[in-house]
Amino acid sequence: MIKVGIVGGTGYTGIELLRLLLRHPEVSVDLISSRGEAGRRLDTLFPTLRSHTDLVFTDPAKADWTRCDVVFFATPHNVAMNTVPALVSDGVRVIDLSADYRLRDAALWESWYGETHASPALCASAVYGLPEMNRAAIKEASLVACAGCYPTSVQLGFLPLLESGLIDPANLIASSASGVSGAGRQAKVANLLTEAGENFKAYGVAGHRHLPEIEQGLATLTGGSVSLTFVPHLVPMNRGIHSTLFGRLLKANQDLHGLFSERYANEPFVDVLPVGQTPETGHVRGGNRCQIGVSVPQDRNTVVVTVAIDNLVKGASGQAVQVMNLMFGLPETAGLAGIALAP
Amino acid sequence: MIKVGIVGGTGYTGIELLRLLLRHPEVSVDLISSRGEAGRRLDTLFPTLRSHTDLVFTDPAKADWTRCDVVFFATPHNVAMNTVPALVSDGVRVIDLSADYRLRDAALWESWYGETHASPALCASAVYGLPEMNRAAIKEASLVACAGCYPTSVQLGFLPLLESGLIDPANLIASSASGVSGAGRQAKVANLLTEAGENFKAYGVAGHRHLPEIEQGLATLTGGSVSLTFVPHLVPMNRGIHSTLFGRLLKANQDLHGLFSERYANEPFVDVLPVGQTPETGHVRGGNRCQIGVSVPQDRNTVVVTVAIDNLVKGASGQAVQVMNLMFGLPETAGLAGIALAP
Amino acid sequence: MIKVGIVGGTGYTGIELLRLLLRHPEVSVDLISSRGEAGRRLDTLFPTLRSHTDLVFTDPAKADWTRCDVVFFATPHNVAMNTVPALVSDGVRVIDLSADYRLRDAALWESWYGETHASPALCASAVYGLPEMNRAAIKEASLVACAGCYPTSVQLGFLPLLESGLIDPANLIASSASGVSGAGRQAKVANLLTEAGENFKAYGVAGHRHLPEIEQGLATLTGGSVSLTFVPHLVPMNRGIHSTLFGRLLKANQDLHGLFSERYANEPFVDVLPVGQTPETGHVRGGNRCQIGVSVPQDRNTVVVTVAIDNLVKGASGQAVQVMNLMFGLPETAGLAGIALAP
Amino acid sequence: MIKVGIVGGTGYTGIELLRLLLRHPEVSVDLISSRGEAGRRLDTLFPTLRSHTDLVFTDPAKADWTRCDVVFFATPHNVAMNTVPALVSDGVRVIDLSADYRLRDAALWESWYGETHASPALCASAVYGLPEMNRAAIKEASLVACAGCYPTSVQLGFLPLLESGLIDPANLIASSASGVSGAGRQAKVANLLTEAGENFKAYGVAGHRHLPEIEQGLATLTGGSVSLTFVPHLVPMNRGIHSTLFGRLLKANQDLHGLFSERYANEPFVDVLPVGQTPETGHVRGGNRCQIGVSVPQDRNTVVVTVAIDNLVKGASGQAVQVMNLMFGLPETAGLAGIALAP
Repeated sequence: MIKVGIVGGTGYTGIELLRLLLRHPEVSVDLISSRGEAGRRLDTLFPTLRSHTDLVFTDPAKADWTRCDVVFFATPHNVAMNTVPALVSDGVRVIDLSADYRLRDAALWESWYGETHASPALCASAVYGLPEMNRAAIKEASLVACAGCYPTSVQLGFLPLLESGLIDPANLIASSASGVSGAGRQAKVANLLTEAGENFKAYGVAGHRHLPEIEQGLATLTGGSVSLTFVPHLVPMNRGIHSTLFGRLLKANQDLHGLFSERYANEPFVDVLPVGQTPETGHVRGGNRCQIGVSVPQDRNTVVVTVAIDNLVKGASGQAVQVMNLMFGLPETAGLAGIALAP
Repeated sequence: MIKVGIVGGTGYTGIELLRLLLRHPEVSVDLISSRGEAGRRLDTLFPTLRSHTDLVFTDPAKADWTRCDVVFFATPHNVAMNTVPALVSDGVRVIDLSADYRLRDAALWESWYGETHASPALCASAVYGLPEMNRAAIKEASLVACAGCYPTSVQLGFLPLLESGLIDPANLIASSASGVSGAGRQAKVANLLTEAGENFKAYGVAGHRHLPEIEQGLATLTGGSVSLTFVPHLVPMNRGIHSTLFGRLLKANQDLHGLFSERYANEPFVDVLPVGQTPETGHVRGGNRCQIGVSVPQDRNTVVVTVAIDNLVKGASGQAVQVMNLMFGLPETAGLAGIALAP
Repeated sequence: MIKVGIVGGTGYTGIELLRLLLRHPEVSVDLISSRGEAGRRLDTLFPTLRSHTDLVFTDPAKADWTRCDVVFFATPHNVAMNTVPALVSDGVRVIDLSADYRLRDAALWESWYGETHASPALCASAVYGLPEMNRAAIKEASLVACAGCYPTSVQLGFLPLLESGLIDPANLIASSASGVSGAGRQAKVANLLTEAGENFKAYGVAGHRHLPEIEQGLATLTGGSVSLTFVPHLVPMNRGIHSTLFGRLLKANQDLHGLFSERYANEPFVDVLPVGQTPETGHVRGGNRCQIGVSVPQDRNTVVVTVAIDNLVKGASGQAVQVMNLMFGLPETAGLAGIALAP
Repeated sequence: MIKVGIVGGTGYTGIELLRLLLRHPEVSVDLISSRGEAGRRLDTLFPTLRSHTDLVFTDPAKADWTRCDVVFFATPHNVAMNTVPALVSDGVRVIDLSADYRLRDAALWESWYGETHASPALCASAVYGLPEMNRAAIKEASLVACAGCYPTSVQLGFLPLLESGLIDPANLIASSASGVSGAGRQAKVANLLTEAGENFKAYGVAGHRHLPEIEQGLATLTGGSVSLTFVPHLVPMNRGIHSTLFGRLLKANQDLHGLFSERYANEPFVDVLPVGQTPETGHVRGGNRCQIGVSVPQDRNTVVVTVAIDNLVKGASGQAVQVMNLMFGLPETAGLAGIALAP
């Protein structure tokens, strides 16, 4: 059994990691920390875990992570970067669900996050955790920075088109929408049911921190630079991310559905829908799956790709488990074969 | 008092028309018809109307519309086009909330709706009911085809940019999202709470009937043709439409916020938000208002316009009342000054 | 015009008061205070108010309330009780939407709120603001403590039965359910969309602060004591309170629907539904109306009364305006005749 | 492997059965029928099943159920009663999720369902499928009528109190609330998101078909008759049932929490929460668990029990799988150990 530790288990990615890892056949969760909840049983905070675990939150200052084979960070940004270097030095493998190591360029990170990076050297060596783009490197990695939720959906949607040079990389548009769990389990007026319910809005139009992450990833596909206009929206639902992507076609009459189907034929968690179907977030709820539809409306020169994932699974904790499976030579689908919950 | 008739009062645009007209200071609702509910008191179908009206649904076959000054059609498409010609001949003014007369080109209408138009001659002479584009013509019209819900939001968002020639008309993108009331009060599995709740999806990607209506309207602004990629989405909420519009800027460093503010300075129902703010559907719920935000993310060459309306008010019944006010020389805001409901 | 002041206008009862009062034909809102938002225009906090008001939040320490004819308190408990005595001395009439003066017995108040009451003498003289029980006293009052949201629904539902002695006052049960706006516009994890959405729960089972208020009111109807078991629940919606009330019938074969209809025949805001119909919160959304259904399932000995109100209107701000109308000799329905918003 | 057949797999209990059975370690789903969808792949109707099954709906007229070890009926009432007798004769074990065999008294069934029962003799011999009340009989049964969703929650909540004679069986009250999936996957206006969303209402107050089922079950606990007032409500959410139960205590000062804890100590799917906690439907979403809270508000003489289940799991398909496990000697938790999805 792989011994797992989790830093910061009180948020939504933390509870989702626990949901998956506590039922994973090859894993034991040994250690989980929380500053605010140290000493408290997990199942008193999360009643879904009653009878599934007796774990108690450990004070991070007292946690001995070196007894773990792998440590997940399910923390806000600005936590992992302070602790990870020591863990890596001690030979503990790290899977970071936060944003701390997603940008290879620490200066770029600092400009978007408005603070100094505590371990900039690791930014360049951390492996970006999107298996469909980066499987080989993940297997060997000591530190994986898991792809963000929006970035997973946008990159998987543009990937076949950019790899094949079929769309103009200088003119990419992503109109994405997320359920409210993407904002985390923090008390904010804007995320109250009374504010976010019966409501739909764009936010972060002027610039969202996932933009440089996505552009970095897409640029590796083209070998050059890309320019993306990215507008996220907030949807009155708990879970789910949907991205509607627009690209200018450089060639007409291509079999785009065939392109997508072939590219993802061997991917266990990417599902290209039949021609004419579009994905729905409600069809991937709770599952580690990305469903994709592709079409060229009116046979004009703009391709529209629609992508749905569960932001907490394929967009966060499920992807982190998939990464762990790769790192430890387990079947990639271990612990992730559950069927999505509908309705 | 203006004597009003309503054809088809059992859907959501019908009940919304009643909510507005029964409180309108210059109107009396005299006649309302329904095939399925003839003889039934309105307030037994709509308990919100109890004590507000004693009206009974009339069988449309027995209704004498000529006693009305104006008749609203709150029907699905393919109803108005059969009845309107006779009404217009009789001198009754008509405000059609359905799609029957929105396209000036009857052949285009037939290709999108897959049926023969019953009164194609009127298509060309009907006035398109979007006051912000067409106020003078509406005042004199005998037949107004009210703008659709998505088309209202998309046209008001692109209007200042296209009028001023600042964006490329051949490369327009609209990513829109609607609450479920846009689908009408019809029993369909896809619109059950269990299907549409906790869910987000695109639909009609290959081609939505509002596309030709929007392109027709936008083309009048440019004097030439336009090309729009339009993707609507379904949001788990009752009311509201939000459109996120993307345009390629032809000139850099323009004061776009100033442009919008100036263009809409005298419009009572279009509200350009301060720089940096974005509209929310929850801020226009129940009100006849269109709120707009404009920005150029990262100061690149794509402008993003975000637009919110209540699909049943400014996107349908409120707009129809606004049109009626114009047609009858009333203050444009009569009966429409209510403040939106929040939360 | 009646000059109105509002203390604490940043919560949901505050914005709802503004929605109603800014459109009220006999009122001008002159002064509104907020400690946290002093100096800020209201419409920057509440975009629904744009173009409807130029008001700016005043620092309560600098507000001269004596220029107002009436001051509303739309504050949490423990604010009004410190300020009201001076206002009342100065001859300003006060309508308190908070809980500070709802219990006539200050000691009881202190036991439920866990703090010392700052002006206990006023508790006994404040008039309880439920017009259907207390209209005459409200007209003459200098200080009205508006009924709470749950208490309004429960008291209006039990009133005819207790007044007529038809049910056992020692065995009353109320199973109530509220939309999340009842919890206020405060950042709490439990009220995030992610926690309250797709969820239903009871809360405050061991004892909710509305219990003594309801029991006090019901006891005035019986002349003796009453005993109520009251369980509130949280519903994933913005607005609305629904109460399902159970009473043990002391006499069989009574015309209960007739009893309710007669009792409320002249009440402008209480609507007894036809036999066999049950109220829905969605039918009173935004309106100052209480809809009631009554039935005796299986003709056994338990009567079931179902009651729906909008918690922010008839359960709070609408009721406060109704109270103001009574206090100032205006038509009771002034400013309150809007039709509920459906859907 | 146990060979399973499913009659009627196109509703919500059908898709939920598939979600559970396709991942069950001891089961193969061999046959699934649908009149309306015969010949169609399941995963074209339910995209959540893509890659999880290649099954195709069979025409029920052509289905050979005798090759199955057990057949589940996930149909509306009035289907199973026509087909089950032949299956039972052929030695196929049957688990009926519908209401056809839940009432032992066929005449009572006919009075509530308004039609003639097609196989009344089986009503008396069918075993009622609520394992916590009936485990031994289920193990030996050839035909099990699974408990309904509301009945499961109400019976599990009252069970310890009635078994121990602590409450008055003549004066039971259940105020229950269900997510909309309880109404099935049928196109009805009342269950549209626009009608059921942002809404809360009671329904079936005069008499709901689950009343006689619950009273029959509770009566077996007391040995005499019981009288229940049962009011169901509709909640704007997909999944979940919550019941708030009220009983008149016959003895004071009992350790009710101890009573519940002891009674359910060995039940794998009933979880009595710590003193002071109340269950939430969001904490059992997707899991086969019943969480229960018990309290005596104000230490008066009314006990309040709150119960939460997922109506599609412990209230339907999960319970059916639990029943199957018992019938075939499998571990009772086989295929049911998944952790609930939160948020």
